Amino acid sequence: MKSVNIPAIAVKRLSLYARNLALLDQKGVEVVSSAGLADICGVNPAQIRKDLGYFGQFGIRGVGYYVKELLFEIRKILGLEKEWRLALVGVGNLGSALLGHAQLLNQGYTFVAAFETDPKRIGMQIGDITVAPVKAMKRLVMEKGVEIGVIAVSPRWAQQAADKFVKAGVRGILNFAPVQLQCPSALHVENVDFTRKLDMLCYRLTLND
Amino acid sequence: MKSVNIPAIAVKRLSLYARNLALLDQKGVEVVSSAGLADICGVNPAQIRKDLGYFGQFGIRGVGYYVKELLFEIRKILGLEKEWRLALVGVGNLGSALLGHAQLLNQGYTFVAAFETDPKRIGMQIGDITVAPVKAMKRLVMEKGVEIGVIAVSPRWAQQAADKFVKAGVRGILNFAPVQLQCPSALHVENVDFTRKLDMLCYRLTLND
Repeated sequence: MKSVNIPAIAVKRLSLYARNLALLDQKGVEVVSSAGLADICGVNPAQIRKDLGYFGQFGIRGVGYYVKELLFEIRKILGLEKEWRLALVGVGNLGSALLGHAQLLNQGYTFVAAFETDPKRIGMQIGDITVAPVKAMKRLVMEKGVEIGVIAVSPRWAQQAADKFVKAGVRGILNFAPVQLQCPSALHVENVDFTRKLDMLCYRLTLND
Repeated sequence: MKSVNIPAIAVKRLSLYARNLALLDQKGVEVVSSAGLADICGVNPAQIRKDLGYFGQFGIRGVGYYVKELLFEIRKILGLEKEWRLALVGVGNLGSALLGHAQLLNQGYTFVAAFETDPKRIGMQIGDITVAPVKAMKRLVMEKGVEIGVIAVSPRWAQQAADKFVKAGVRGILNFAPVQLQCPSALHVENVDFTRKLDMLCYRLTLND
Protein backbone atom coordinates (compact mmCIF):
# COMPACT_ATOMS: atom_id res chain seq x y z
CA MET A 1 0.00 0.00 0.00
CA LYS A 2 1.33 3.48 -0.86
CA SER A 3 0.97 4.74 2.67
CA VAL A 4 3.39 7.65 2.52
CA ASN A 5 2.17 11.22 2.11
CA ILE A 6 -1.48 10.33 1.87
CA PRO A 7 -3.34 13.30 3.32
CA ALA A 8 -5.52 12.51 6.36
CA ILE A 9 -8.42 14.26 4.67
CA ALA A 10 -8.29 11.75 1.79
CA VAL A 11 -8.49 8.87 4.28
CA LYS A 12 -11.46 10.56 5.97
CA ARG A 13 -13.20 10.80 2.63
CA LEU A 14 -12.55 7.10 1.93
CA SER A 15 -14.48 6.47 5.11
CA LEU A 16 -17.33 8.60 3.76
CA TYR A 17 -17.30 6.69 0.49
CA ALA A 18 -17.42 3.39 2.37
CA ARG A 19 -20.49 4.59 4.33
CA ASN A 20 -22.36 5.45 1.18
CA LEU A 21 -21.25 2.37 -0.74
CA ALA A 22 -22.57 0.24 2.13
CA LEU A 23 -25.93 2.04 1.86
CA LEU A 24 -25.99 1.45 -1.91
CA ASP A 25 -25.13 -2.21 -1.33
CA GLN A 26 -27.98 -2.53 1.17
CA LYS A 27 -30.32 -1.12 -1.46
CA GLY A 28 -29.13 -3.74 -3.96
CA VAL A 29 -27.28 -1.29 -6.24
CA GLU A 30 -24.49 -3.17 -8.03
CA VAL A 31 -22.74 -0.47 -10.08
CA VAL A 32 -22.36 3.26 -9.47
CA SER A 33 -20.72 5.91 -11.67
CA SER A 34 -18.14 8.17 -10.06
CA ALA A 35 -20.56 11.07 -10.70
CA GLY A 36 -23.33 9.16 -8.92
CA LEU A 37 -21.16 8.27 -5.94
CA ALA A 38 -19.81 11.83 -5.80
CA ASP A 39 -23.33 13.21 -5.71
CA ILE A 40 -24.39 10.97 -2.82
CA CYS A 41 -21.23 11.81 -0.90
CA GLY A 42 -21.44 15.55 -1.55
CA VAL A 43 -17.99 15.77 -3.20
CA ASN A 44 -16.97 16.12 -6.85
CA PRO A 45 -16.13 13.10 -9.05
CA ALA A 46 -12.53 14.21 -9.64
CA GLN A 47 -12.03 14.19 -5.86
CA ILE A 48 -13.14 10.56 -5.61
CA ARG A 49 -10.85 9.50 -8.44
CA LYS A 50 -7.95 11.38 -6.86
CA ASP A 51 -8.54 9.94 -3.38
CA LEU A 52 -8.81 6.39 -4.69
CA GLY A 53 -5.77 7.01 -6.88
CA TYR A 54 -3.56 7.10 -3.81
CA PHE A 55 -4.29 3.42 -3.26
CA GLY A 56 -4.46 1.93 -6.72
CA GLN A 57 -6.69 1.60 -9.78
CA PHE A 58 -10.41 1.17 -9.15
CA GLY A 59 -13.44 1.23 -11.37
CA ILE A 60 -13.91 0.70 -15.08
CA ARG A 61 -13.90 3.59 -17.52
CA GLY A 62 -17.38 4.24 -18.93
CA VAL A 63 -18.99 1.92 -16.37
CA GLY A 64 -18.10 3.15 -12.92
CA TYR A 65 -17.46 1.18 -9.76
CA TYR A 66 -18.75 -2.20 -8.73
CA VAL A 67 -20.27 -1.33 -5.36
CA LYS A 68 -19.37 -4.50 -3.44
CA GLU A 69 -15.87 -4.60 -4.88
CA LEU A 70 -15.02 -0.96 -4.14
CA LEU A 71 -16.51 -1.26 -0.65
CA PHE A 72 -14.38 -4.34 -0.02
CA GLU A 73 -11.24 -2.59 -1.26
CA ILE A 74 -11.82 0.57 0.79
CA ARG A 75 -12.56 -1.46 3.90
CA LYS A 76 -9.29 -3.31 3.33
CA ILE A 77 -7.39 -0.04 2.97
CA LEU A 78 -8.94 1.29 6.18
CA GLY A 79 -8.16 -1.93 8.02
CA LEU A 80 -11.85 -2.72 8.51
CA GLU A 81 -11.86 -6.25 7.13
CA LYS A 82 -11.23 -7.42 10.70
CA GLU A 83 -13.37 -6.93 13.80
CA TRP A 84 -12.16 -4.13 16.07
CA ARG A 85 -12.89 -4.65 19.76
CA LEU A 86 -13.75 -1.53 21.72
CA ALA A 87 -14.11 -0.76 25.43
CA LEU A 88 -16.02 2.22 26.76
CA VAL A 89 -15.39 4.21 29.90
CA GLY A 90 -18.31 6.36 31.08
CA VAL A 91 -21.81 4.95 30.73
CA GLY A 92 -23.80 8.20 30.96
CA ASN A 93 -26.15 9.39 28.24
CA LEU A 94 -23.40 9.70 25.67
CA GLY A 95 -21.81 6.36 26.57
CA SER A 96 -25.21 4.64 26.43
CA ALA A 97 -25.85 6.18 23.01
CA LEU A 98 -22.50 4.81 21.81
CA LEU A 99 -23.17 1.32 23.15
CA GLY A 100 -26.51 1.33 21.35
CA HIS A 101 -25.16 2.72 18.08
CA ALA A 102 -26.54 0.36 15.44
CA GLN A 103 -24.15 1.54 12.72
CA LEU A 104 -21.02 0.46 14.59
CA LEU A 105 -21.64 -3.24 14.33
CA ASN A 106 -22.24 -3.02 10.56
CA GLN A 107 -18.89 -1.35 10.21
CA GLY A 108 -16.80 -3.94 12.04
CA TYR A 109 -16.74 -2.34 15.50
CA THR A 110 -17.86 -4.21 18.60
CA PHE A 111 -18.03 -2.94 22.15
CA VAL A 112 -16.91 -5.83 24.36
CA ALA A 113 -16.62 -4.02 27.72
CA ALA A 114 -17.84 -0.88 29.50
CA PHE A 115 -16.48 0.69 32.68
CA GLU A 116 -17.80 3.07 35.31
CA THR A 117 -16.77 4.53 38.64
CA ASP A 118 -20.38 5.25 39.65
CA PRO A 119 -21.56 2.32 41.88
CA LYS A 120 -25.15 2.88 40.70
CA ARG A 121 -24.13 2.04 37.15
CA ILE A 122 -21.72 -0.83 37.83
CA GLY A 123 -23.47 -4.13 37.17
CA MET A 124 -25.98 -2.60 34.74
CA GLN A 125 -26.67 -4.80 31.73
CA ILE A 126 -26.60 -3.04 28.34
CA GLY A 127 -27.09 -5.45 25.47
CA ASP A 128 -24.44 -8.15 25.90
CA ILE A 129 -22.31 -6.02 28.20
CA THR A 130 -22.27 -5.87 31.98
CA VAL A 131 -20.90 -2.52 33.16
CA ALA A 132 -17.70 -3.23 35.13
CA PRO A 133 -15.81 -1.15 37.70
CA VAL A 134 -12.87 0.84 36.32
CA LYS A 135 -10.50 -1.18 38.50
CA ALA A 136 -11.29 -4.26 36.38
CA MET A 137 -10.15 -2.45 33.24
CA LYS A 138 -6.65 -3.89 32.91
CA ARG A 139 -7.84 -7.46 33.33
CA LEU A 140 -10.85 -7.17 31.00
CA VAL A 141 -8.99 -5.25 28.27
CA MET A 142 -6.51 -8.11 28.15
CA GLU A 143 -9.05 -10.95 28.46
CA LYS A 144 -11.34 -9.53 25.79
CA GLY A 145 -8.62 -8.41 23.37
CA VAL A 146 -9.66 -4.75 23.41
CA GLU A 147 -7.61 -2.60 21.03
CA ILE A 148 -9.46 0.72 21.22
CA GLY A 149 -10.58 2.61 24.32
CA VAL A 150 -13.49 5.02 24.00
CA ILE A 151 -13.68 7.88 26.51
CA ALA A 152 -17.12 9.30 27.27
CA VAL A 153 -16.55 10.70 30.76
CA SER A 154 -16.71 14.35 31.81
CA PRO A 155 -13.67 16.51 30.92
CA ARG A 156 -12.24 16.45 34.45
CA TRP A 157 -11.91 12.64 34.44
CA ALA A 158 -10.84 12.20 30.83
CA GLN A 159 -7.08 12.23 31.43
CA GLN A 160 -7.39 9.67 34.24
CA ALA A 161 -9.48 7.46 32.00
CA ALA A 162 -6.87 7.77 29.25
CA ASP A 163 -4.05 6.88 31.69
CA LYS A 164 -5.94 3.77 32.73
CA PHE A 165 -6.54 2.73 29.13
CA VAL A 166 -2.83 3.24 28.40
CA LYS A 167 -1.84 1.07 31.38
CA ALA A 168 -4.36 -1.55 30.31
CA GLY A 169 -2.60 -1.72 26.94
CA VAL A 170 -5.02 -0.34 24.36
CA ARG A 171 -3.46 0.79 21.07
CA GLY A 172 -5.78 3.68 20.29
CA ILE A 173 -8.23 6.02 21.97
CA LEU A 174 -11.37 7.69 20.68
CA ASN A 175 -11.94 10.65 22.98
CA PHE A 176 -15.29 12.43 23.29
CA ALA A 177 -14.23 14.71 26.17
CA PRO A 178 -13.31 18.26 25.09
CA VAL A 179 -9.81 17.88 26.53
CA GLN A 180 -6.40 17.55 24.88
CA LEU A 181 -5.16 14.22 26.29
CA GLN A 182 -1.51 13.66 27.16
CA CYS A 183 -0.65 10.16 25.93
CA PRO A 184 2.49 8.27 24.88
CA SER A 185 3.30 9.17 21.29
CA ALA A 186 3.01 5.54 20.14
CA LEU A 187 -0.68 5.60 21.04
CA HIS A 188 -3.13 6.93 18.47
CA VAL A 189 -5.78 9.34 19.69
CA GLU A 190 -8.71 10.72 17.74
CA ASN A 191 -10.83 13.45 19.30
CA VAL A 192 -14.51 13.92 18.60
CA ASP A 193 -15.49 17.45 19.58
CA PHE A 194 -18.80 18.38 18.04
CA THR A 195 -18.66 21.90 19.50
CA ARG A 196 -15.93 22.60 16.94
CA LYS A 197 -18.39 21.65 14.20
CA LEU A 198 -20.85 24.07 15.77
CA ASP A 199 -18.17 26.78 15.73
CA MET A 200 -17.59 26.09 12.04
CA LEU A 201 -21.32 26.34 11.36
CA CYS A 202 -21.56 29.68 13.18
CA TYR A 203 -18.50 30.98 11.37
CA ARG A 204 -20.19 30.23 8.06
CA LEU A 205 -23.49 31.76 9.17
CA THR A 206 -21.66 34.87 10.38
CA LEU A 207 -19.81 35.25 7.06
CA ASN A 208 -23.21 35.15 5.35
CA ASP A 209 -24.63 37.99 7.44
CA MET B 1 -12.35 40.34 7.76
CA LYS B 2 -10.35 38.59 5.03
CA SER B 3 -12.92 35.90 4.54
CA VAL B 4 -11.87 34.73 1.09
CA ASN B 5 -9.76 31.61 0.64
CA ILE B 6 -9.36 30.85 4.31
CA PRO B 7 -9.12 27.05 4.51
CA ALA B 8 -11.82 25.37 6.58
CA ILE B 9 -9.14 23.51 8.48
CA ALA B 10 -7.67 26.82 9.70
CA VAL B 11 -11.08 27.86 11.00
CA LYS B 12 -11.42 24.50 12.76
CA ARG B 13 -8.08 25.06 14.44
CA LEU B 14 -9.17 28.55 15.57
CA SER B 15 -11.98 26.79 17.35
CA LEU B 16 -9.43 24.48 19.02
CA TYR B 17 -7.33 27.47 20.09
CA ALA B 18 -10.42 29.15 21.56
CA ARG B 19 -11.19 26.00 23.60
CA ASN B 20 -7.74 25.93 25.10
CA LEU B 21 -7.52 29.69 25.65
CA ALA B 22 -10.79 29.49 27.57
CA LEU B 23 -9.29 26.76 29.77
CA LEU B 24 -6.17 28.88 30.37
CA ASP B 25 -8.37 31.86 31.20
CA GLN B 26 -10.33 29.76 33.70
CA LYS B 27 -7.03 28.84 35.34
CA GLY B 28 -6.11 32.53 35.64
CA VAL B 29 -3.32 32.42 33.04
CA GLU B 30 -2.94 35.91 31.52
CA VAL B 31 -0.22 35.46 28.90
CA VAL B 32 0.79 32.43 26.83
CA SER B 33 3.63 32.06 24.34
CA SER B 34 2.82 30.68 20.91
CA ALA B 35 4.99 27.65 21.79
CA GLY B 36 2.99 27.16 24.99
CA LEU B 37 -0.36 27.45 23.25
CA ALA B 38 0.84 25.19 20.44
CA ASP B 39 1.87 22.54 22.96
CA ILE B 40 -1.51 22.54 24.70
CA CYS B 41 -3.33 22.40 21.37
CA GLY B 42 -1.11 19.67 19.92
CA VAL B 43 -0.04 21.72 16.87
CA ASN B 44 3.20 23.52 16.05
CA PRO B 45 3.74 27.23 16.81
CA ALA B 46 4.21 28.20 13.16
CA GLN B 47 0.76 26.74 12.45
CA ILE B 48 -0.86 28.97 15.07
CA ARG B 49 0.86 32.07 13.71
CA LYS B 50 -0.17 31.15 10.16
CA ASP B 51 -3.81 30.45 11.10
CA LEU B 52 -4.12 33.70 13.03
CA GLY B 53 -2.34 35.53 10.21
CA TYR B 54 -5.40 35.03 7.98
CA PHE B 55 -7.34 37.33 10.27
CA GLY B 56 -4.86 40.00 11.34
CA GLN B 57 -1.96 40.68 13.69
CA PHE B 58 -2.16 39.10 17.12
CA GLY B 59 0.29 38.73 19.98
CA ILE B 60 3.44 40.61 20.88
CA ARG B 61 6.86 39.47 19.72
CA GLY B 62 8.91 38.07 22.61
CA VAL B 63 5.87 38.04 24.91
CA GLY B 64 3.18 35.91 23.35
CA TYR B 65 -0.56 36.30 23.45
CA TYR B 66 -2.76 37.94 26.04
CA VAL B 67 -5.14 35.08 26.76
CA LYS B 68 -8.35 37.09 27.27
CA GLU B 69 -7.63 39.32 24.29
CA LEU B 70 -6.86 36.51 21.85
CA LEU B 71 -9.87 34.53 23.06
CA PHE B 72 -12.08 37.58 22.51
CA GLU B 73 -10.69 38.11 19.01
CA ILE B 74 -11.06 34.49 17.97
CA ARG B 75 -14.60 34.35 19.31
CA LYS B 76 -15.38 37.48 17.29
CA ILE B 77 -13.91 35.90 14.14
CA LEU B 78 -15.98 32.74 14.67
CA GLY B 79 -19.13 34.79 15.31
CA LEU B 80 -19.36 33.57 18.91
CA GLU B 81 -19.67 36.93 20.61
CA LYS B 82 -23.44 36.51 20.33
CA GLU B 83 -25.66 33.81 21.80
CA TRP B 84 -26.65 31.11 19.31
CA ARG B 85 -30.05 29.55 19.90
CA LEU B 86 -30.34 25.85 19.14
CA ALA B 87 -33.24 23.43 18.85
CA LEU B 88 -32.87 19.67 19.11
CA VAL B 89 -34.89 16.97 17.44
CA GLY B 90 -34.60 13.50 18.98
CA VAL B 91 -34.38 13.25 22.76
CA GLY B 92 -32.86 9.75 23.06
CA ASN B 93 -29.57 9.03 24.79
CA LEU B 94 -27.55 11.14 22.38
CA GLY B 95 -30.04 14.03 22.44
CA SER B 96 -30.16 13.97 26.23
CA ALA B 97 -26.36 14.03 26.35
CA LEU B 98 -26.37 17.07 24.07
CA LEU B 99 -28.97 18.92 26.14
CA GLY B 100 -26.88 18.28 29.24
CA HIS B 101 -23.56 19.26 27.63
CA ALA B 102 -22.03 21.71 30.12
CA GLN B 103 -19.45 23.03 27.66
CA LEU B 104 -22.03 24.38 25.24
CA LEU B 105 -23.32 27.13 27.47
CA ASN B 106 -19.80 28.41 28.16
CA GLN B 107 -19.26 28.70 24.46
CA GLY B 108 -22.31 30.79 23.64
CA TYR B 109 -24.70 28.01 22.61
CA THR B 110 -28.10 27.59 24.22
CA PHE B 111 -30.69 24.92 23.55
CA VAL B 112 -34.05 26.65 23.69
CA ALA B 113 -36.30 23.86 22.38
CA ALA B 114 -36.37 20.08 21.94
CA PHE B 115 -38.70 18.01 19.80
CA GLU B 116 -39.84 14.40 19.71
CA THR B 117 -42.33 12.20 17.90
CA ASP B 118 -42.40 9.62 20.72
CA PRO B 119 -45.46 10.39 22.91
CA LYS B 120 -43.64 8.93 25.94
CA ARG B 121 -40.99 11.64 25.70
CA ILE B 122 -43.19 14.62 24.78
CA GLY B 123 -43.77 16.73 27.88
CA MET B 124 -40.57 15.55 29.59
CA GLN B 125 -38.75 18.35 31.40
CA ILE B 126 -34.97 18.50 30.79
CA GLY B 127 -33.38 21.46 32.52
CA ASP B 128 -35.33 24.53 31.35
CA ILE B 129 -36.77 22.75 28.33
CA THR B 130 -40.08 20.94 27.95
CA VAL B 131 -39.88 18.39 25.15
CA ALA B 132 -42.42 19.44 22.49
CA PRO B 133 -44.07 17.47 19.68
CA VAL B 134 -42.43 17.81 16.26
CA LYS B 135 -45.60 19.41 14.91
CA ALA B 136 -44.93 22.44 17.15
CA MET B 137 -41.50 22.95 15.54
CA LYS B 138 -42.36 25.72 13.10
CA ARG B 139 -44.09 27.83 15.75
CA LEU B 140 -41.44 27.34 18.45
CA VAL B 141 -38.47 27.86 16.13
CA MET B 142 -39.97 31.23 15.21
CA GLU B 143 -41.08 32.21 18.72
CA LYS B 144 -37.76 31.33 20.31
CA GLY B 145 -35.53 32.70 17.56
CA VAL B 146 -33.83 29.37 16.83
CA GLU B 147 -31.09 29.66 14.20
CA ILE B 148 -29.57 26.17 14.34
CA GLY B 149 -31.34 22.82 14.27
CA VAL B 150 -29.58 19.82 15.80
CA ILE B 151 -30.55 16.38 14.49
CA ALA B 152 -30.10 13.43 16.86
CA VAL B 153 -32.68 11.02 15.48
CA SER B 154 -32.01 7.63 13.90
CA PRO B 155 -30.75 7.64 10.30
CA ARG B 156 -34.13 6.72 8.81
CA TRP B 157 -35.81 9.83 10.24
CA ALA B 158 -32.95 12.28 9.74
CA GLN B 159 -34.04 13.61 6.32
CA GLN B 160 -37.59 14.21 7.57
CA ALA B 161 -36.23 16.05 10.58
CA ALA B 162 -34.05 18.18 8.30
CA ASP B 163 -37.02 18.98 6.04
CA LYS B 164 -39.00 20.13 9.04
CA PHE B 165 -36.16 22.32 10.28
CA VAL B 166 -35.84 23.84 6.81
CA LYS B 167 -39.57 24.61 6.69
CA ALA B 168 -39.37 26.06 10.19
CA GLY B 169 -36.72 28.49 8.94
CA VAL B 170 -33.46 27.51 10.66
CA ARG B 171 -30.28 28.80 8.99
CA GLY B 172 -27.99 25.89 9.81
CA ILE B 173 -28.12 22.22 10.80
CA LEU B 174 -25.78 20.14 12.94
CA ASN B 175 -26.47 16.56 11.94
CA PHE B 176 -25.48 13.57 14.11
CA ALA B 177 -27.21 10.96 11.93
CA PRO B 178 -24.86 9.07 9.57
CA VAL B 179 -26.83 10.24 6.54
CA GLN B 180 -26.01 12.72 3.77
CA LEU B 181 -28.90 15.20 4.08
CA GLN B 182 -30.45 16.82 1.02
CA CYS B 183 -30.99 20.48 1.92
CA PRO B 184 -31.34 23.79 0.04
CA SER B 185 -27.87 25.06 -0.83
CA ALA B 186 -28.38 28.29 1.17
CA LEU B 187 -28.60 26.24 4.35
CA HIS B 188 -25.36 25.31 6.11
CA VAL B 189 -25.03 21.72 7.28
CA GLU B 190 -22.25 20.25 9.42
CA ASN B 191 -22.16 16.50 9.96
CA VAL B 192 -20.79 14.85 13.08
CA ASP B 193 -19.96 11.24 12.28
CA PHE B 194 -17.69 9.78 14.92
CA THR B 195 -17.52 6.44 13.09
CA ARG B 196 -15.34 8.22 10.52
CA LYS B 197 -12.95 9.14 13.34
CA LEU B 198 -12.92 5.48 14.33
CA ASP B 199 -12.11 4.55 10.73
CA MET B 200 -9.20 6.99 10.78
CA LEU B 201 -7.95 5.49 14.03
CA CYS B 202 -8.10 1.96 12.62
CA TYR B 203 -6.37 3.07 9.43
CA ARG B 204 -3.49 4.44 11.52
CA LEU B 205 -3.34 1.31 13.68
CA THR B 206 -3.35 -0.86 10.57
CA LEU B 207 -0.50 1.13 8.98
CA ASN B 208 1.47 0.53 12.18
CA ASP B 209 1.04 -3.23 12.02
